[in-house]
Amino acid sequence: MEETFVPFRGIKKDLKGRLLCYKQDWTGGIRAGIRILAPTTYIFFASAIPVISFGEQLERDTVGGQPLLILGVAEPTVLMYTFMFNFAKDQKDLGQPLFLAWTGWVCVWTALLLVLLSVLGACSIINRFTRVAGELFGLLIAMLFMQQAIKGVVEEFGIPKSEDPNQLALQPSWRFGNGMFALVLSFGLLITALKSRKARSWRYGAGWLRGFIADYGVPVMVVVWTGVSYLPVNDVPKGIPRRLFSPNPWSPGAYTNWTVAKEMLNVPPVYIVGAFIPATMIAVLYYFDHSVASQLAQQKEFNLKKPSSYHYDLLLLGFLTLLCGLLGIPPANGVIPQSPMHTKSLATLKHQLLRRKLVDTARTSINKNSNLSELYENMQHAYNEMQTPLAYQIPSSLGLKELKESTIQQASSGGCIHAPVDETIFDVDKDIDDLLHVEVKEQRLSNVLQSLMVGGCLAAMPFLKKIPTSVLWGYFAFMAIESLPGNQFWERILLLFTAPSRRYKVLEEHHATFVETVPFKTVAAFTLFQTVYLLACFGITWIPIAGVLFPLMIMLLVPARQYLLPKFFKGAHLQDLDAAEFEEVSATYNMTFGEDDAHSKTRTPQVDSAEVLDEIMTRSRGEIRHTSTSKVNGLPQNPIDNMKPAYSPRISEQIDSPHLNDLQVNKSPKSPV
Amino acid sequence: MEETFVPFRGIKKDLKGRLLCYKQDWTGGIRAGIRILAPTTYIFFASAIPVISFGEQLERDTVGGQPLLILGVAEPTVLMYTFMFNFAKDQKDLGQPLFLAWTGWVCVWTALLLVLLSVLGACSIINRFTRVAGELFGLLIAMLFMQQAIKGVVEEFGIPKSEDPNQLALQPSWRFGNGMFALVLSFGLLITALKSRKARSWRYGAGWLRGFIADYGVPVMVVVWTGVSYLPVNDVPKGIPRRLFSPNPWSPGAYTNWTVAKEMLNVPPVYIVGAFIPATMIAVLYYFDHSVASQLAQQKEFNLKKPSSYHYDLLLLGFLTLLCGLLGIPPANGVIPQSPMHTKSLATLKHQLLRRKLVDTARTSINKNSNLSELYENMQHAYNEMQTPLAYQIPSSLGLKELKESTIQQASSGGCIHAPVDETIFDVDKDIDDLLHVEVKEQRLSNVLQSLMVGGCLAAMPFLKKIPTSVLWGYFAFMAIESLPGNQFWERILLLFTAPSRRYKVLEEHHATFVETVPFKTVAAFTLFQTVYLLACFGITWIPIAGVLFPLMIMLLVPARQYLLPKFFKGAHLQDLDAAEFEEVSATYNMTFGEDDAHSKTRTPQVDSAEVLDEIMTRSRGEIRHTSTSKVNGLPQNPIDNMKPAYSPRISEQIDSPHLNDLQVNKSPKSPV
Repeated sequence: MEETFVPFRGIKKDLKGRLLCYKQDWTGGIRAGIRILAPTTYIFFASAIPVISFGEQLERDTVGGQPLLILGVAEPTVLMYTFMFNFAKDQKDLGQPLFLAWTGWVCVWTALLLVLLSVLGACSIINRFTRVAGELFGLLIAMLFMQQAIKGVVEEFGIPKSEDPNQLALQPSWRFGNGMFALVLSFGLLITALKSRKARSWRYGAGWLRGFIADYGVPVMVVVWTGVSYLPVNDVPKGIPRRLFSPNPWSPGAYTNWTVAKEMLNVPPVYIVGAFIPATMIAVLYYFDHSVASQLAQQKEFNLKKPSSYHYDLLLLGFLTLLCGLLGIPPANGVIPQSPMHTKSLATLKHQLLRRKLVDTARTSINKNSNLSELYENMQHAYNEMQTPLAYQIPSSLGLKELKESTIQQASSGGCIHAPVDETIFDVDKDIDDLLHVEVKEQRLSNVLQSLMVGGCLAAMPFLKKIPTSVLWGYFAFMAIESLPGNQFWERILLLFTAPSRRYKVLEEHHATFVETVPFKTVAAFTLFQTVYLLACFGITWIPIAGVLFPLMIMLLVPARQYLLPKFFKGAHLQDLDAAEFEEVSATYNMTFGEDDAHSKTRTPQVDSAEVLDEIMTRSRGEIRHTSTSKVNGLPQNPIDNMKPAYSPRISEQIDSPHLNDLQVNKSPKSPV
Repeated sequence: MEETFVPFRGIKKDLKGRLLCYKQDWTGGIRAGIRILAPTTYIFFASAIPVISFGEQLERDTVGGQPLLILGVAEPTVLMYTFMFNFAKDQKDLGQPLFLAWTGWVCVWTALLLVLLSVLGACSIINRFTRVAGELFGLLIAMLFMQQAIKGVVEEFGIPKSEDPNQLALQPSWRFGNGMFALVLSFGLLITALKSRKARSWRYGAGWLRGFIADYGVPVMVVVWTGVSYLPVNDVPKGIPRRLFSPNPWSPGAYTNWTVAKEMLNVPPVYIVGAFIPATMIAVLYYFDHSVASQLAQQKEFNLKKPSSYHYDLLLLGFLTLLCGLLGIPPANGVIPQSPMHTKSLATLKHQLLRRKLVDTARTSINKNSNLSELYENMQHAYNEMQTPLAYQIPSSLGLKELKESTIQQASSGGCIHAPVDETIFDVDKDIDDLLHVEVKEQRLSNVLQSLMVGGCLAAMPFLKKIPTSVLWGYFAFMAIESLPGNQFWERILLLFTAPSRRYKVLEEHHATFVETVPFKTVAAFTLFQTVYLLACFGITWIPIAGVLFPLMIMLLVPARQYLLPKFFKGAHLQDLDAAEFEEVSATYNMTFGEDDAHSKTRTPQVDSAEVLDEIMTRSRGEIRHTSTSKVNGLPQNPIDNMKPAYSPRISEQIDSPHLNDLQVNKSPKSPV
């Protein structure tokens, strides 16, 4: 993206790009038919459960620019509101009654700052938000989630503030039982949810069942453990286990508080001005968080065709913040990890749609005794039909074409190019998987639908109140752990703890370029720096009032990366550890091409395509490299070559997946965070 | 073994064989030095924890024939005693006071029957105890362990029979807390113990630490979770969680009851005669259990050099049972899974000892510029030194020799046979691993030491009493789950639940011959029969008094296998599913030899030899087959061959491990249970 700070230019460009797709955003979604419900419900659960846990009743807005971006109240927002509440409740002139009115002012200032940032084109420096900052922020959020999970479980042993300590369920004996029950429920949810996510690669059970468990296992587990919480009935008093109600300290009467706007005038002027300080922090936080969430939803690996909309979205976020402030509710912003999860689920959808169409076409062609050229022509035609012509289109280097050519070449060397195709030459089920690369069903229907469903949760409150709080603490821990894979910072931390004799195992799997190209000591130093920085950020959130400054710490990492780190690390190493668009290094990334081409037409038998996609998506933040024959640290090769198993789809899945090839082709030194 | 029923012949033969090794059994153990403590402590913990859980104070005897056999009070014994107690306590003339005296009579009859069986050579039909019976029995024991675990945890919510129900810790609120705490502790132990067993293949932590955790993780976890049980101190009354004391209903005064022998004369004559009925069942049970445990400790895969001692051991068991009966304690017999665990740990020890010696020899030879022939000569010499010459020796087809020849052949084809050896020709660390096959440090020191340590536990009672009962329920569940891998019956059950599209994954791993040779429907029918039989056996144990007959059910399976099953299943299929020595089928097992030889000199890089051994041992009950190129159900081979990873020790470990080759060479249609 061009770095320009001419007022309104960024917004205009965003609007121009998105408006051209706007109609197709809706029609495309509608034409996908009933299948759109899969990503919709998937992301609904991922949004709704945290929303439930924060106990918020949110207004949701999906008239945004980038329709892949999912809005929600993020953990940092809750943190900021907690800081503000702790400050306000002790102020004589403010106190609890005027807290929401004061946050109204904070939101006004925040909105103003966000609109300013947007108008002035601040998002054009988005490429300076490299992985080092984004991943540190991701890990910080994971730590905050985990902290909340642990705190929540510990509190299950204590007396809740707002409750009458004399009631039966709060006697020491029952509190002990409640706490232990909470441990059972939260760990139960955590462990079963983690297991269910891996269901697609289970050995037992039918494919559809495994797919269902992998997609919906987590909400199902919430229901199951809620059911378990009702098992103890004998003698157990009401209130054990504790269940959800409105746990926000700052919204004891959220339902009756829609008149915050009126009360805002009662806030003393000095606090109106003072609100600017937290407002700056929230603005910095949102600017960063919203942009990074949007960036993660639009990673290069997703091969999006429609344009981004950072400036316009930031403008909308400003208005949304203002609205939330006036209504007395905490503002929502683009959230991690739901936003990239949304894009991922849409990629699965697109894959299914494309696959079905191409399989049908190929079958028809084969029945008509077409030869291989004709077959591909028909398939190319069908493929193009699926690609809605967009007025605005990023020139895509991808398509059926390149892979087709290598396939035809291979077939012609076998001398069968003009013969009628049969399933021995072109295995419809397998080969079409090889032809398809990652594409995303870009539309805004799923986002609107999931927002409506979250809104519909208001009606489901009687059910939601049955969920034990301890189940939610387990879910928090689950969210924290689920966000780790794919985060290179986290994987580098793991690498530091990997026994030297076991490092070869890292090389066997998908791994980032740096594992091979950057010396271990440099990786360790870089990771140590990042870890210390992370702990500092986390530490700051613990400081009572000054903790409000923590967004500054994260933001500071952006200039630190650009100006400070290059003094301590070699350019090429930094490039591999944390690719930045502003540093152009002439890296030789094309070395893997030859290998990939040689493999691109191999058949991966009996592999569930969704499972492959799963694998790619969770691991594909940034540069991926598979084991390259010539690089594995000097181990003898030939004996092992001869020893290879006759048949090893587990590994071939990982290495020869066509999607991975695409990722490789796509890979450039300029990958985003 | 020859099937002969001439009185005393079996015992005489056993004694003759073992006496020739008797001195070496001790000297060999002592010469192993401090390292003998590794298998000793390993098996001590495996013995002691169940002993603790049964709350028994056992006399232990290790002057047995086969010193690999571990004695203990098995779950079926506890079951039989419970049946007898439930019968006796309701009898007017017997009741609780005379229960132990009556069991004394049961033991007298049992001992008589066991001595008779031994004298008459009943153990010579041991080969008729095929896998189908042994594995069913193993699974039944696992089910009984699991049942006890579940029952134990459920009882944590209730009021123990012998306690005052008015005490504070037994109020409904504290009972609820106690039960929930029990769930936390038992699942905590179960999950961490299962994880720790896999520590050797963890990616993180130094090798010695992973090895330590894998070997001692389970007792360490018992200590850790006992520690955790002391964490709640505020307001929690004494008695929560419940801890160990003497939980046996039939021994309220076990310490003062050593005079049972005197009271035996007070038992009414009708009960003395009636005691013959349970005695028969216990005799059948012990005859079966003791022999199968001994058989499992002496599987062909272990390549034992010293002879078996079934008859003499059964005779000793008779005397031991008599002694136990007169002392009023439940008799001990050979136990599963501890006995095979013992042999396995001794195999690891022998491997370490041999390896160290050969590496030293090879290094010395290389430094002296020996050529390959001389190197092998020196190594053969060192190897022979380690093999104590036994007067009685089973002719062993194994040794350094065969593998040496193939190595030399390979080296000579490379033309380097007369050149001085260097590490490129002979990689000391790797190649010696390839030369060694599974051998066991056969001695009786470790068994005596562990028995003494178990005896020493009496002194440790003040510590043992600190262990929460719930931790033991978790340990019971752990024992049940740990006993499953390697049980082909269990693996066939899993195979039935494996999705057809995932069956290829079974073929990728170690798997039994039948997976490839027997039609799925036949496998399913056989497994279904076995499952129904198992459930019937399990069901019988639930019947109040008649349950005492369950050992008959298991014993009946032996003739059923021999005379009934061949009517429903083809001979070749039956042979692959359940090899029996009495059925000689001309199977063509040598087809894998060629492949194995081709691989036998390949190098397995960076593989922890103990880890390999782990893998083999847990999976090596019976016929093992690795993936054979030509047999994987018609999948295209070449593309996958080309796709193989450059480097994949995970799989090459499994396939090219020299130990596996030995297992293959060793494999015969006559493998024991």
